[in-house]
Amino acid sequence: MAQQHLDPPTDPTADPTAGPTGDALAGYLRGQATEFLRSLRQHRETGAANGTEDSGDAALALRRSARRISGTLHTFRPLLDTDWSEGMRPELAWLSGTLAREHAYAARLERLLLALHRLSGSTAFPAPTGGAADSGTGPRSRPGVPERGNLTVGAAKAGALLERQLTLARTRAHSAALQALGSGRFHAVADSVAVLASEVPLTAAATTADLRLPAAAAKERLRDAVAALPLVTAGHPYNAEALVHGLSPDPAPHPQDGPWHQVRLLLRLHRYAQEVLCGQDAPVDVRLLTAGEALNRHRDASEAAAAAAAAARTPRIAPATAYALGVLHADQRHEVEAARFAFQQSWQKQAVHTP
Amino acid sequence: MAQQHLDPPTDPTADPTAGPTGDALAGYLRGQATEFLRSLRQHRETGAANGTEDSGDAALALRRSARRISGTLHTFRPLLDTDWSEGMRPELAWLSGTLAREHAYAARLERLLLALHRLSGSTAFPAPTGGAADSGTGPRSRPGVPERGNLTVGAAKAGALLERQLTLARTRAHSAALQALGSGRFHAVADSVAVLASEVPLTAAATTADLRLPAAAAKERLRDAVAALPLVTAGHPYNAEALVHGLSPDPAPHPQDGPWHQVRLLLRLHRYAQEVLCGQDAPVDVRLLTAGEALNRHRDASEAAAAAAAAARTPRIAPATAYALGVLHADQRHEVEAARFAFQQSWQKQAVHTP
Repeated sequence: MAQQHLDPPTDPTADPTAGPTGDALAGYLRGQATEFLRSLRQHRETGAANGTEDSGDAALALRRSARRISGTLHTFRPLLDTDWSEGMRPELAWLSGTLAREHAYAARLERLLLALHRLSGSTAFPAPTGGAADSGTGPRSRPGVPERGNLTVGAAKAGALLERQLTLARTRAHSAALQALGSGRFHAVADSVAVLASEVPLTAAATTADLRLPAAAAKERLRDAVAALPLVTAGHPYNAEALVHGLSPDPAPHPQDGPWHQVRLLLRLHRYAQEVLCGQDAPVDVRLLTAGEALNRHRDASEAAAAAAAAARTPRIAPATAYALGVLHADQRHEVEAARFAFQQSWQKQAVHTP
Repeated sequence: MAQQHLDPPTDPTADPTAGPTGDALAGYLRGQATEFLRSLRQHRETGAANGTEDSGDAALALRRSARRISGTLHTFRPLLDTDWSEGMRPELAWLSGTLAREHAYAARLERLLLALHRLSGSTAFPAPTGGAADSGTGPRSRPGVPERGNLTVGAAKAGALLERQLTLARTRAHSAALQALGSGRFHAVADSVAVLASEVPLTAAATTADLRLPAAAAKERLRDAVAALPLVTAGHPYNAEALVHGLSPDPAPHPQDGPWHQVRLLLRLHRYAQEVLCGQDAPVDVRLLTAGEALNRHRDASEAAAAAAAAARTPRIAPATAYALGVLHADQRHEVEAARFAFQQSWQKQAVHTP
C-alpha cells in the first residue's frame, strides 16, 4: 500500500516527525456524527415510509457514517473511553445491519434477474422490478412485471420465484427498518451520536498519542488476513475452487467464503483509519478501492448464489425451474471465483508498486 | 509456429532448397495404411465383442491411422488420384466416427461423474463405471455401482440418470461399431487401405511436386480460422461468454462452439501435414500439442454440458435432480470457457516465440 498514506497531513507549524493525535481523531468522529445526524434528518423529511429514492440515499448516507463511526471506535479504541465506545459499537452495527437489509435484497434480486437474462442469451434488459408504474409505452408491458420475452419456461419461472421470495424478504426488511427507526433503541443510538457530534470522549493520553500506531495495527491485521487467503489458487484463472461445494449436502453458506468476507471488513477498517489520519484531503487510493470493489462483488455473488440455492429448495417447483436455479447458482459461484481473481490481481499490483 | 517444421528433413545428397516430394507422401501413406491393417488384425484377435481394454487400444490405433490417412488425402489432394481419394475420405470418416462413439460416451460419463463428485466437495474418487466386477474388499460396495457416499440426493440421482442414459448410448455405439466392422462397407474400406499399403495412387506430377506448398496452405487455413476466433475475449479470464446461452430456449448445441471445433480439426490437419513433411523424426511441437489438448478439452466439455442439459429434459425427474444437472451443465460450460482461455494462452505463446 502507498507509503504516503502513513505520513501525517502537512502542517508547517507542527513537528514534521510527529503524526496526527487525538485532535484529528476527535475531528473525524465529530464530522461523521454530524453527517449521521444530517442524513437522519433528511431520511425523516423525505419520508422513509414511502421508500423513495431520496430516502434510500439518506439511508445509504446514514449507514455510511454509522460504519465509519463504528470502525473508528474499533481501530482507535485505546484512545477512547472504553465503556462508552464498547457500548456504542454493537448498537451502531445493529442499526447499519438493519438499514442495509432492504437494499441488499433489492440488489440481490436485480443481480439474479440480470444473470438469468444474460444466461438466456437475451440482449433485452429486464424491466426494473418493484412498484414503479410503467409508462405504458412498451409493447404490451404490464406495470411492475419484468419482461421475460426471451427466457425459457424454466428461466422465467425461476425469475418469478426469486422475485416473489426476495420481494417478500425486502418488504419485511423495509418494515423492520421502519420499526427500528421508531424504536427506543434507535433513539438511544441517535442520542449517543448527537453527544459525539459535540464532545468526543477521548482518554487523557489521547491528546498526545500518535494515531499512526493504531492505524498501522489495523493495516497489519489486514495484511495478516490477506496473507492467509489462498491467493496463489485465486490467481490461477478457472481454478474451479468456488464451486467445489456447489452440490455439497451442507446447506450452510460456503465456509470457504468466510476469510474473504473477513478481509473485506478489515480492508474497510484500514480505509477508514487512513481517512482519520489524512482527513478529507486524503488521496484516493484507486488500487485499494479496486480491491474493495472486488470483495463487495465477492460478497454479493456469494449471497446471490445462496439465494438461488435456497429458492431451489422450495417444495413442489417444476424440474425446469430447479434446473435454471442450478445454472444460476453455478453462475454466481463462478462470479465469486472471478471476484477472487480480480482481488488477487489488484492486490498483487499493490504489492509490486509498494516501495 | 516453429519455422523448422517447414524445413525439409536433412538429406546430404539432396538439393538443400528442395522440399520433400511425392515419394515422402507415398511413404507416409503406406506407413499409415500398414498401421491401420496391423491395428485391425489386433482388434480381431483381441476380440472386439468382449470390449476388453486391448480391443479398445486397437480401436484407438485404428482410428488414429484412419484419421491420418483421411487428413493426408485432404491436404495433399492435388498430388493424388482425385476420384480415388474423394471416394475414400467419407468412408474413412464414417469408420472413425463409428468407432469413436463408444469411447466418447464412456469418457463423457466419466467426466460428468467426476465433476459431480468435485461439485459435492467429495474427495472420494468415484468407482470405475461399467461391468468390471468389484473385488468385494471395499466397504459394502456393490459391483459396478459407483460410490455415491458423499453426494446429495440430487447429485446422486443426477449421476444415476446420466449413467443410465450414457451407458445405454455406449452399449448401442458398441453394437453399431461391431456391426460396422462386419459390414461390406467396412470390408471395402479395408480393401482400399490394403491397396494403399502397397501402392499409393500419385498423379504424374506428384513425384517432383513440392509437398511444402499444400502443407503451407493447410497452415494458412488454420491461421485464418484462428484469426476469426474471439481470442481477445477468450484471453480475459472469467468473461462469462461460454454460459451466455446456458438457459437459451434453443436446445441445439451452442453455435458459439462451432468455430472452435473447426480450429481443432484444422490444427489436426496441420499436425498431420507436418508429420508427412518431417517423417517420424519430426520434433514434437509441445505448444502445438498444448493448443490441441485445450481444444480437445473444449470439445469434451461442450459435449458433456450438452449431455447434462439433455438429461435435464428427461420427463418426471425430481427437482433436486434437475438442480444438480443445472449446476453440472454450468460447470461444464465454464470448463469450455477455461479451455478457450488455455488455447488463447498457448497460441499467444506460439505467436510470441515465432521468429
